[in-house]
Amino acid sequence: MDAGRFSSPFFLGIDLGGTNIKSGVVDDQGRPLSSISVETQADRGPGVGMDNLVKAGDEAVRASGLDWDRIEAVGLGSPGTMDIDAGMLLDPPNLPGGDNMPIRQLLADRLKKPVVLQNDGNAAAYGEYWVGAGMNTHSLVMFTLGTGVGGGIVIGGTILQGRHSHGGECGHIIIEAENGRRCSCGALGHLEAYASATAVVKRAPETLEGTSLPSALRSIEPHHLSSRAVADAAAAGDAIARKLMRDTSHYLAVGAVTLMHTIDPDIVLFGGGMIAAGIHFLEDIRIDVRAMAFPVPAARTRIEYAKLGSDAGFIGAAGCARMNQIQARE
Amino acid sequence: MDAGRFSSPFFLGIDLGGTNIKSGVVDDQGRPLSSISVETQADRGPGVGMDNLVKAGDEAVRASGLDWDRIEAVGLGSPGTMDIDAGMLLDPPNLPGGDNMPIRQLLADRLKKPVVLQNDGNAAAYGEYWVGAGMNTHSLVMFTLGTGVGGGIVIGGTILQGRHSHGGECGHIIIEAENGRRCSCGALGHLEAYASATAVVKRAPETLEGTSLPSALRSIEPHHLSSRAVADAAAAGDAIARKLMRDTSHYLAVGAVTLMHTIDPDIVLFGGGMIAAGIHFLEDIRIDVRAMAFPVPAARTRIEYAKLGSDAGFIGAAGCARMNQIQARE
Repeated sequence: MDAGRFSSPFFLGIDLGGTNIKSGVVDDQGRPLSSISVETQADRGPGVGMDNLVKAGDEAVRASGLDWDRIEAVGLGSPGTMDIDAGMLLDPPNLPGGDNMPIRQLLADRLKKPVVLQNDGNAAAYGEYWVGAGMNTHSLVMFTLGTGVGGGIVIGGTILQGRHSHGGECGHIIIEAENGRRCSCGALGHLEAYASATAVVKRAPETLEGTSLPSALRSIEPHHLSSRAVADAAAAGDAIARKLMRDTSHYLAVGAVTLMHTIDPDIVLFGGGMIAAGIHFLEDIRIDVRAMAFPVPAARTRIEYAKLGSDAGFIGAAGCARMNQIQARE
Repeated sequence: MDAGRFSSPFFLGIDLGGTNIKSGVVDDQGRPLSSISVETQADRGPGVGMDNLVKAGDEAVRASGLDWDRIEAVGLGSPGTMDIDAGMLLDPPNLPGGDNMPIRQLLADRLKKPVVLQNDGNAAAYGEYWVGAGMNTHSLVMFTLGTGVGGGIVIGGTILQGRHSHGGECGHIIIEAENGRRCSCGALGHLEAYASATAVVKRAPETLEGTSLPSALRSIEPHHLSSRAVADAAAAGDAIARKLMRDTSHYLAVGAVTLMHTIDPDIVLFGGGMIAAGIHFLEDIRIDVRAMAFPVPAARTRIEYAKLGSDAGFIGAAGCARMNQIQARE
């Protein structure tokens, strides 16, 4: 790694996922010097989880070719209920047993650096805002389409984290007030229950049962079905798979329009594994947004895919650490 | 009017409604010195409308007991599509024919004062934030329940007006992604199509037809039915009217939860004529919000009625003028 191409100061970003912890060192302009991954091992308890966060940080710094003393601050992105300002995880799904864990302080003690905590969806949105598909915009709404539907909102450089650390939970807006599907969070009618990768797979048997049309999906064992298989079949012209994907794009457009009529951002981004479905899926979302939104935002709001892939989380977390240092100096 | 009780500087607020223009002079602490109303006469064209805006301003200043030279700036709240930053009404429902009207400049020329333009829902929300039910909070979401469902969002003293002047259109979030009712704006599934006063009246015959239960509403001619009559019948124990109001409170709770999971404000306010339905209606909204929102916002977010009534619009518009003057001095 030729660190000379990069501009100091440097920041470490850590993205605490369920299976893996992704981490990397990022320069002052949001360019990653390293990108590594270690296992979370959530089942081994919060102590091992903490050790693995430290390990992820160490490996990212080593891979960057920099010494630890070149790292100015650290950003950590995590899912789950938290008190962002207090630096506290309340009920962390990826560190089970770590309830009410003062993770910011614990990690700062271990790494001897200032640490900021942020919701992982917010961090990813900030990453895209800083150096991704939302660069040079004023405001951004992001939906991350994976096992669930994550989200984040950035307005004028500030993450809309909300008064109870629940801002930007864009997967948990209600798109069906009556007879809504049950979301993984337990509530009814949330966008996530319709448009996550998991939801696409769950809707598949219902759609197949409702018709006698042939479909490649019928030959896949239900427990082997994936949203990727549905997207691939749709791309190959399978009518049922196409309907499943088309319905999904409609639900996402509904979510986008709701936030275009309340947040009214410059750009709405879709990220996460499901965007592998390709440009037609995005085009379908755009068509429905244009048809449903008020004329001015329909014409002007950009609807795009995210650019940073699975690096968005750690880049954004590093960006949050950077922003915090800048504000502390002001 | 004893102007000595009030603190300078003073601001004029004007709220351009469909039937009436409400206007008043407000002091530096948001206290109204006057509150007057003149007819809009929208059918007489935008020229007469402009004259009536000036007349409303003159009458409000006269009623305040102050001279015009004590007025520092003027705020105007208007519904409809606009470019807030440009001070332009694009398609004003209350000044028909005034398309692409540079109202800020036109009014400033007539009144010889700096003028700010704001969406009327945003202005009302700002009024409540400044000196109403949202005083001393950090962030507020407001729904105004009248012929339509208006809205406004204030975060940290700043109105979330959005990049295309469509921020805070809380009545136009989509609460039914499939088979949604048609909104007055033409789109499907919007909150306004379920929970405005007009929507309550529209839903009444459907509910009556769906049952043979007796109801006082059956003896009211459909075109004489009002949301107030439904609310009164519900208060008197009428089961059908009660269901209509209960469904309405549910839809409003759905809208509140969607914004609690994205904006996550300190407080959600409901204002407008329909809050005359009383405290039980608010309690029903609260019950559904508590049941549907994530635990922390469910427990902590305050759900309240607005306090300023129909003065919120001009007080808030005056507050916007004041904030603009403060920012111009900084």
